[in-house]
Amino acid sequence: MSTPPITLRDVARRAGVHAGTASRALNPQTRSLVNVDTAQRVIRVAHELGYRPNPIARGLKTNRSLTIGVLLPDLTNPLFPPIVRGIEDALAGAGYTALLANSDNDPDKERLHFETLKSRQVDGFIMATAERDHPLIEDAIAADTPIVLVNRTVDGGQAFAVIPDDHKGAGLAVDHLIGLGHTNIAHIGGPERYSTGKSRHRGFLAAMKKSGLKPDRRIIRFTRTFTEGEGARVFRKLLDDGREFTAVFAANDLLALGCYDVLAESGLRCPRDVSIVGFNDMPFLDKLRPPLTSIRIPHYELGVRSAELLFERLRDPSCEPATVLLEPELVVRGSTSSPRS
Amino acid sequence: MSTPPITLRDVARRAGVHAGTASRALNPQTRSLVNVDTAQRVIRVAHELGYRPNPIARGLKTNRSLTIGVLLPDLTNPLFPPIVRGIEDALAGAGYTALLANSDNDPDKERLHFETLKSRQVDGFIMATAERDHPLIEDAIAADTPIVLVNRTVDGGQAFAVIPDDHKGAGLAVDHLIGLGHTNIAHIGGPERYSTGKSRHRGFLAAMKKSGLKPDRRIIRFTRTFTEGEGARVFRKLLDDGREFTAVFAANDLLALGCYDVLAESGLRCPRDVSIVGFNDMPFLDKLRPPLTSIRIPHYELGVRSAELLFERLRDPSCEPATVLLEPELVVRGSTSSPRS
Repeated sequence: MSTPPITLRDVARRAGVHAGTASRALNPQTRSLVNVDTAQRVIRVAHELGYRPNPIARGLKTNRSLTIGVLLPDLTNPLFPPIVRGIEDALAGAGYTALLANSDNDPDKERLHFETLKSRQVDGFIMATAERDHPLIEDAIAADTPIVLVNRTVDGGQAFAVIPDDHKGAGLAVDHLIGLGHTNIAHIGGPERYSTGKSRHRGFLAAMKKSGLKPDRRIIRFTRTFTEGEGARVFRKLLDDGREFTAVFAANDLLALGCYDVLAESGLRCPRDVSIVGFNDMPFLDKLRPPLTSIRIPHYELGVRSAELLFERLRDPSCEPATVLLEPELVVRGSTSSPRS
Repeated sequence: MSTPPITLRDVARRAGVHAGTASRALNPQTRSLVNVDTAQRVIRVAHELGYRPNPIARGLKTNRSLTIGVLLPDLTNPLFPPIVRGIEDALAGAGYTALLANSDNDPDKERLHFETLKSRQVDGFIMATAERDHPLIEDAIAADTPIVLVNRTVDGGQAFAVIPDDHKGAGLAVDHLIGLGHTNIAHIGGPERYSTGKSRHRGFLAAMKKSGLKPDRRIIRFTRTFTEGEGARVFRKLLDDGREFTAVFAANDLLALGCYDVLAESGLRCPRDVSIVGFNDMPFLDKLRPPLTSIRIPHYELGVRSAELLFERLRDPSCEPATVLLEPELVVRGSTSSPRS
């Protein structure tokens, strides 16, 4: 290394406080002992100087490694990087680091990563991999391992979780289509083993009924994974079956992109022949042909809040499980219009 | 855990070999001592049964943790997930796990992650974060830390690296534009501190000269980062300066997307007024308006080969640094056409 590392003493001197105060301000465990303005000044100075606490020394002192394991189900889904960024930014503000692992939705791979991270002494986990019925997570909660679920949760309310209000988001999508005049609305549902797939389906049904429309089971189909390929496979089958519909609510954007692929094959046009709404508002949708109407989820915020919830859990191991719901928002683009009369 | 873990003995019995043979077959360090067919059978059986070696026990035995640190510069760039998947698949085949960390192109954050992973005893690193002049990597190479660079490399040839043939890829882009009749070709270059930015720029210049065209310095501009925002900023400036050009070679797809944004603002149309070529062929380009012509890089293969090169380095610490170049390929889509006469 070319320059000597910045010490806690350097930070304290520049911030005009004692080293002990600086140490307490920089440690999320003890920050509440310091005046808020002072703590913020110390953190800012530490950031400006590029100060990094010695994680080993601090780990010994407070019995923490200052490392969090983050388990992701599928890095190639553009939904996850913004969540990770939110997690990392929130962790960094408290001197923590994230180690990420990608499970590819494979329970064995997930368990391997989980054990690997645990044996590397992470202080807790943020997991985006939850299925509604998830033995690994149940075991870990039973064993008092600090875990926060993000984006998806388990059934039963025993977990700490930060998730989108999927039920409400589905309602926004359906209300938008009904408002345009659609009544025959198909649903390409996500896998029901995930809370996202299940809640969006339930939200779809509730919104249809609320508007006095009877959901038609024959045009409600489920996919095995949240992927473009599965969206295409299931939508192709739906078209082949010849049922009538003028709009599709797809349970995520990748499924909607799969619908796009099939429309291109079959000579149908969006939105002229079929309106399509996605879910997530992942990057680049505004540049698609046609730009995809979607439900915006605050992914970065999901990440930030999940890290904050984990800090609460670490500070107070006896605190009660909580589910934080974040608000979705409709983003109207070119893939939805009134049905042809 | 509900079921007892699969043991090495279970694998050996099912594969019809002694436990010692199974152990050697499953350990990349000793696999060459076992007949190739036998080793493959053992690996297949281990996979089918869901066998996971006890990493701690094995780490003690062979002095390895079977964990590799992977440092990424920016998870939100869709280029990296397929590289990660390639790395993980290749590692998993040898019983290794990847721990990922995201540096956000911030040297301090990178150093923190590097030290964190090192203190968690990873056996080596695969780094996608390289700048051409990179003190952290130089220090680590000098300290004999096993490192393989992927996608980007450092100057000087002292590193193990698996990268695309960026020079050749730029040539494919330029030759395509020249073949369509373009002679006034602008270049939105990437940051020159990365090998990717530098080699694509050099490849651009070489291809222009090879075809007898004089590159016009006034329409060659550089960005500070490989992001959509920077592509937009630099392309807007280029348009404002009023120089003539009929085509743009952007040094990656995100920069090209930035050009798309500015075209939309300025009433110009692609490809009618300006043809655009990107680089990387990241996902979803075929669904853009217009679909983006790009240079396809085998990202998954970059990941696989970088893991393989790291295994070579781990097996034989005295082996010489090598740079593996992978072949790019032109993918023609709707964003390029002949210039208006």
